[in-house]
Amino acid sequence: MAFDPDTLVYDANGLVPCIAQAEGTGEVLMMAWMTADAVRKTLETGRVTYWSRSRQAFWIKGETSGHTQALIDLRVDCDRDCLLAIVRQEGPACHTNRRSCFYTSVTNGDEVELMKPMVD
Amino acid sequence: MAFDPDTLVYDANGLVPCIAQAEGTGEVLMMAWMTADAVRKTLETGRVTYWSRSRQAFWIKGETSGHTQALIDLRVDCDRDCLLAIVRQEGPACHTNRRSCFYTSVTNGDEVELMKPMVD
Repeated sequence: MAFDPDTLVYDANGLVPCIAQAEGTGEVLMMAWMTADAVRKTLETGRVTYWSRSRQAFWIKGETSGHTQALIDLRVDCDRDCLLAIVRQEGPACHTNRRSCFYTSVTNGDEVELMKPMVD
Repeated sequence: MAFDPDTLVYDANGLVPCIAQAEGTGEVLMMAWMTADAVRKTLETGRVTYWSRSRQAFWIKGETSGHTQALIDLRVDCDRDCLLAIVRQEGPACHTNRRSCFYTSVTNGDEVELMKPMVD
């Protein structure tokens, strides 16, 4: 069946969450949002393109930082309201320069930092 | 620093998305939503507890199906607006009986089914 981005289920703001996972290692790197057009651009260009809610603009991941995400595979969940992008991540995915945005663990009631910023 | 669920960033409906990832294999199993109280219950009980938007009630994963998620680790992202739960998943995570909800790949413009329902 041909995939049509318009058949996804978007929230009231026209957005669908997209989880980025690193190919090979399986690390969950980040979660951000896409519009139908961002989904289209991601598939057309092979570069993961989110929608920036703060800037209200397309956000081609890594366009300024160089920390790009090349799309390996895009997956749709059973309810069609969440996406999983398998990506080849260049360097850190997080704006704090850490590999993943999920670097804080809740352990025994405390917040514990699991990873440090990457050194270029 | 002590973790306080009230310091997370919730959307207009008081919800935060939570990604469930299988320990060991790293499979991304599903994404669902939590309220602050669902986060608290998850940490207190060690059983991943979402908020069902359709039922407007707590959703202790696997309570009726037996396909429970035991919490191994809970992680908070850099913006504090998304959670990652590392879980020990009993059987399938998806209501379609598949291991993961992300069983559909968009490949060359078509939707391709990557996995079949699990057999008990």
